[in-house]
Amino acid sequence: MRYNQFSYYPVSKEEALIQLAELGFKLDPSASEKDQFESFVRNCFFYYKNKDYPLSTLAVDKETDLLAFFTSERELTAEIFYTVAFQLLGFSYLTDFEDGLAFHKETAFPIVYGDLIDNFYQLLNTRTKKGNTLIDQLVSDGLIPEDNNYHYFNGKSLATFSTNNVIREVVYVETRVDSDKDGLPDLVKVNIIRPSFSGRIPAVMTASPYHQGTNDKASDKALYKMEEELTVKEPHKISLEEPTLDLVDPVGQAQLVTEAEEKLTHINSSYTLNDYFLPRGFANIYVSGLGTRDSQGQMTNGDYRQVEAYKNVIDWLNGRCRAFTDHSRKRQVKADWSNGKVATTGLSYLGTMSNGLATTGVEGLEVIIAEAGISSWYNYYRENGLVTSPGGYPGEDFDSLDELTYSRNLLAGDYIRGNNAHKAALEELKKNLDRKTGDYNQFWHDRNYLLNAKKVKAEVVFTHGSQDWNVKPLHVYQMFNALPSGIKKHLFYHNGAHVYINNWQSIDFRESMNALLTQRLLGQETQYQLPTVIWQDNTVEQTWMTLADFGNQETSKTFKLGTNQAAIQNQYEESDFERFGKNYPTFNTELYQGKVNQLTIDLPVTEDLHINGRVKLNIRLKSSTNKGLLSAQLLELGQKKYLQPYPGILSVRTLDNGRYHMLDNLFELPYSQSAQRVITKGYLNLQNRHDLLKIEEVKPDEWMEFQFELQPTIYKLRKGDTLRLVLYTTDFEITIRDNTDYRLTVDLAQSSLEIPLQ
Amino acid sequence: MRYNQFSYYPVSKEEALIQLAELGFKLDPSASEKDQFESFVRNCFFYYKNKDYPLSTLAVDKETDLLAFFTSERELTAEIFYTVAFQLLGFSYLTDFEDGLAFHKETAFPIVYGDLIDNFYQLLNTRTKKGNTLIDQLVSDGLIPEDNNYHYFNGKSLATFSTNNVIREVVYVETRVDSDKDGLPDLVKVNIIRPSFSGRIPAVMTASPYHQGTNDKASDKALYKMEEELTVKEPHKISLEEPTLDLVDPVGQAQLVTEAEEKLTHINSSYTLNDYFLPRGFANIYVSGLGTRDSQGQMTNGDYRQVEAYKNVIDWLNGRCRAFTDHSRKRQVKADWSNGKVATTGLSYLGTMSNGLATTGVEGLEVIIAEAGISSWYNYYRENGLVTSPGGYPGEDFDSLDELTYSRNLLAGDYIRGNNAHKAALEELKKNLDRKTGDYNQFWHDRNYLLNAKKVKAEVVFTHGSQDWNVKPLHVYQMFNALPSGIKKHLFYHNGAHVYINNWQSIDFRESMNALLTQRLLGQETQYQLPTVIWQDNTVEQTWMTLADFGNQETSKTFKLGTNQAAIQNQYEESDFERFGKNYPTFNTELYQGKVNQLTIDLPVTEDLHINGRVKLNIRLKSSTNKGLLSAQLLELGQKKYLQPYPGILSVRTLDNGRYHMLDNLFELPYSQSAQRVITKGYLNLQNRHDLLKIEEVKPDEWMEFQFELQPTIYKLRKGDTLRLVLYTTDFEITIRDNTDYRLTVDLAQSSLEIPLQ
Repeated sequence: MRYNQFSYYPVSKEEALIQLAELGFKLDPSASEKDQFESFVRNCFFYYKNKDYPLSTLAVDKETDLLAFFTSERELTAEIFYTVAFQLLGFSYLTDFEDGLAFHKETAFPIVYGDLIDNFYQLLNTRTKKGNTLIDQLVSDGLIPEDNNYHYFNGKSLATFSTNNVIREVVYVETRVDSDKDGLPDLVKVNIIRPSFSGRIPAVMTASPYHQGTNDKASDKALYKMEEELTVKEPHKISLEEPTLDLVDPVGQAQLVTEAEEKLTHINSSYTLNDYFLPRGFANIYVSGLGTRDSQGQMTNGDYRQVEAYKNVIDWLNGRCRAFTDHSRKRQVKADWSNGKVATTGLSYLGTMSNGLATTGVEGLEVIIAEAGISSWYNYYRENGLVTSPGGYPGEDFDSLDELTYSRNLLAGDYIRGNNAHKAALEELKKNLDRKTGDYNQFWHDRNYLLNAKKVKAEVVFTHGSQDWNVKPLHVYQMFNALPSGIKKHLFYHNGAHVYINNWQSIDFRESMNALLTQRLLGQETQYQLPTVIWQDNTVEQTWMTLADFGNQETSKTFKLGTNQAAIQNQYEESDFERFGKNYPTFNTELYQGKVNQLTIDLPVTEDLHINGRVKLNIRLKSSTNKGLLSAQLLELGQKKYLQPYPGILSVRTLDNGRYHMLDNLFELPYSQSAQRVITKGYLNLQNRHDLLKIEEVKPDEWMEFQFELQPTIYKLRKGDTLRLVLYTTDFEITIRDNTDYRLTVDLAQSSLEIPLQ
Repeated sequence: MRYNQFSYYPVSKEEALIQLAELGFKLDPSASEKDQFESFVRNCFFYYKNKDYPLSTLAVDKETDLLAFFTSERELTAEIFYTVAFQLLGFSYLTDFEDGLAFHKETAFPIVYGDLIDNFYQLLNTRTKKGNTLIDQLVSDGLIPEDNNYHYFNGKSLATFSTNNVIREVVYVETRVDSDKDGLPDLVKVNIIRPSFSGRIPAVMTASPYHQGTNDKASDKALYKMEEELTVKEPHKISLEEPTLDLVDPVGQAQLVTEAEEKLTHINSSYTLNDYFLPRGFANIYVSGLGTRDSQGQMTNGDYRQVEAYKNVIDWLNGRCRAFTDHSRKRQVKADWSNGKVATTGLSYLGTMSNGLATTGVEGLEVIIAEAGISSWYNYYRENGLVTSPGGYPGEDFDSLDELTYSRNLLAGDYIRGNNAHKAALEELKKNLDRKTGDYNQFWHDRNYLLNAKKVKAEVVFTHGSQDWNVKPLHVYQMFNALPSGIKKHLFYHNGAHVYINNWQSIDFRESMNALLTQRLLGQETQYQLPTVIWQDNTVEQTWMTLADFGNQETSKTFKLGTNQAAIQNQYEESDFERFGKNYPTFNTELYQGKVNQLTIDLPVTEDLHINGRVKLNIRLKSSTNKGLLSAQLLELGQKKYLQPYPGILSVRTLDNGRYHMLDNLFELPYSQSAQRVITKGYLNLQNRHDLLKIEEVKPDEWMEFQFELQPTIYKLRKGDTLRLVLYTTDFEITIRDNTDYRLTVDLAQSSLEIPLQ
């Protein structure tokens, strides 16, 4: 284990003493250090009547247990402090570690022995081996009562609200959208879980079209066959209109009642970050939105109608929209428990909706925690004028996602009433997708949140993985860089795939979010500051560091690609073509082994390089025909340990989100042997080689020169490493599978790779 | 999904009506069937004030929603009943199924439309798609209050005890053992979680040496290198003494106090079957026992001292032993909350301890639920005179397990005080293990629970997997068949590996255990009967059936192995030997592909065969040298779908063990393509070819005839299937790796395979 502490901020000794006393740590700064230490340790064992016993089970060195130490004449030392501190955090002395000072170094332990009060204060804010901070562990074991009131420690709200007698209720928000055009504003179901508290409280809200269930069958049926020929497009410039949004007014009168009339029963698996916030005094709100089970309207697939409907929930929380008790619209209920302040949470489509919501600038949305969110839907299903599948989902397009999330069809009664309109909307969608050309068009323009990034007012937290080939790093890069300059923004850039990070051992993301939301949503004026970029070092285990920016670097390094010309054949033998089509991971494996139709360029790294931004390919190339697609991957090559993309379980159900509340497993990215690691990728239609909005001709056997920007990333290479650039045509996971006989020839002597340097 | 319902028993209509009324289902048998149906369905939606809405979301056919149906003149039919019943169970009509009658057949739905009261009653006892029974789902959503009192439905206790205000406490039971020979009875820590209830309650107890933590580092260090030569043993007969057990008397006086003085904090991951029983009014007790963290004594590794110490916890629950409040032994506390009745739970070592405890015949132990438990430790680390590793753990022996479970060393203070004695005990253990010969001896005899099977008084429930090569099926087979005839015994024989089954979709194991424990521990006189053998059919998905017995079949089928002689070479080329040693799964893969040193005999199956018991090899064989080991595997051969050994997740955290209490994932064995499936295995030292206790000479090149019994199993083969028998020497996963140059020759013409038939 290695410590990375971003949730902690130092306070004055006076302040520390006050906060410690509130938790029952009554320390006397005038007493000897050893006595203070004993008092602190004994209080940590509040659950024993006879505290001598637990003290006797700890040790200060290889001969002396802690009880014996306290009754001896020996002085407290740094080594003894660390040795005991680690044991309080759940490490076994003589088993997990044998030398407190060495282990202090090995774990990058954030506490430096010195001012004991400071040390105790920080120790309580430091994580145990099993993932909770020590204070969270002690509170969950009952150090202070569950009094349904707010208690803060180091600017973070403690788990003092009961999760047993929470209020679970459902209301139906009247949105400003009439997507089914029935003359009535569409209703969206709002699932609320909130602690019992007499005052007003903030909310964490997860906008998730998945949460009311998904229609996997219909979605699978809507998958496309990837085997088809790349279309030759007519040269032209794409023109677009400013997106518009039609809103409707409330309709009819409704009686005001004091309570919701539907109790919330079990929901689909809750998000553990929300679970964590619930006992800390934050309502949990799950909204699935337009076109989902128990809500109304069409699935409008990421457009601003969908976003508006989620926004209207925030409006309701602030008294600006109505919520009805049920579909009859006869009775309305106010969010009189809400302080109006909201943070959004969730990954993927959920993070996407956070991005969309932020760009509405809605009042009350204080923070978005957008995890692996899409910033422009074009870049999810298309790339540079090509139809591309999200990594891992070949053949998926927006209509498959529509079928997946249109969960109204899971209710047979609603299926009967609404399926015809849904099918008609799907037909319209299929037309708008334009799978023929893969071009950007009005449909995608209407789903590009970057256009409204200037309107963002919320503080923004992004998480994204360097190995996320589903929602690719370009999404967060573009959004991060499009935000107005006055906005506080933060990015946790990790080395995993499309995954959550709130339950990892090495990063106190959960506690950092607590510190931020306590400040922004609970109005605590703390000194807490979250860095702009927190980057997980790819070269070692469990190591995170702060950076000033993502991209926007001033220096770069250029690699020449070679001295000759080289060709890439597009066509495969039928047997290989079928084999790769049936099982795309086989294609990836053989691509990394250099066995498919590919141009492979190995580039020795002669000095340490820290990539930060978009790697660019400056290419001179010709196609043997009047079309062509180009795929590129940049790899770190060589058998060694790399961080693997999917977190593995370190310990089972040891993370307590409250008091025996939704226990979670503790995770970490495995650090293990592989033959290579992907650094970045890119896909390009040669007809869009200069500009996404400009379709150009490809003339057979005529040289073309252009710059091809790959996915942005942050990645460290060391002197002696090897970069491998792979250029190829069909990617059996991502692109369409056109098996016509053509060839790309690259003029390596006049091509280069340009790497932006941190 | 396919239904298998073993937890349900029918009751009279009068009884059903009373039980339904207690849950708030006030049905009027004189009303029309349709009205009764409407009343039932509306009550299922108790959490809506306006129940018309949920009714409108269900449908009875492709045009009519349920609300419209109820206001129409149409009659209730079987098809409508099923269609709605499935929707109440969480299946989406028109998505999950389109035809209620067809789905009824496809899912083997246990309810036959007829008597509606009966149908409602059974429907509530039937599982939803997400794994809870409908009644458990409704109760967890708040159908009846959490009143900390017992409520029964169909002979099963409902989740009406709060898991929020449970009592969590620790006591230290004074055992009758002094394993560290300090003149004081060893204390064992008892972790108790119990609902608040004024009367006396039963307990489910998990005896687990793992539960206070494990010392993985020390255990790994104690692994053996498998590469060594097979010892040539002196011929002799092994003699044994009757095992003895020295017990000690209580020492000293202790003041009686009314409450425990240590609060139980977080434990290592709880067992979800226990989590399920807690809100149903069963105390959860976790005991790690002798030599574990916070307890005293040595790790005595499965002997009757270890068992006695666990037994003494049951004695304390019945007032026959003392428990102290802490290690000072000054104050004692009574289990005045206990009704004395106990069931044990847990898998592997935990199930082993259940077996051990049952053979003490201790009063109060009403039921053991022994999952994949060991019945004789010899058969865990040895087989037929050979040192063998448990599947998946090459090189493990009892000393590695000792180091793993001697968790006192995780507490540095106790490490300092106790490690010398522990190391001395380990040295003694290493001697007793006798890794040289692999023979049965007094050490193993002292750890053979089968010797005391006749003393068992508890009702016994076993679970075991046909693919469990860690604790092999022989363990449960021997125990099952050694039990005295008066005992009620039950076996769930599944097709997984070394895994729990309490959270699978296809089998209502959890609810069956509830029905049994409600009868035996809560004294409810119900008509519930659990079959003797519940066997998971290996040829299809999600299908379980009852059988009368495990083994003891009267018919068999014999396959001749061939007409010639064939040799098996023992020695590998150095490169292969190293490769297999480094990565034993490679060896298994190549063995199944017929590529290693092996004799492969394919036997066509010409009629349906249902194996039940131990497959026997009648062998005529000679060795080219004065020793030899024989490994055998019987496979079903052929690329097709088989049940895979490890359960996969069907849905995340949808199993609620109470009311938002320890949500669990729903699992099932995947049914997917493989090239073969293991049916049974066996390992034999040719020097022990006739009797485990008789070591005979192997004369080079001299024919030997013997019968070799493989692991028992229950397995169905169909006409047209192919059996593959593989005979070989070294198994790189299981046996020692002796690479000397010798050869076994099998006289196939005089050898046969004998299969016991159901």
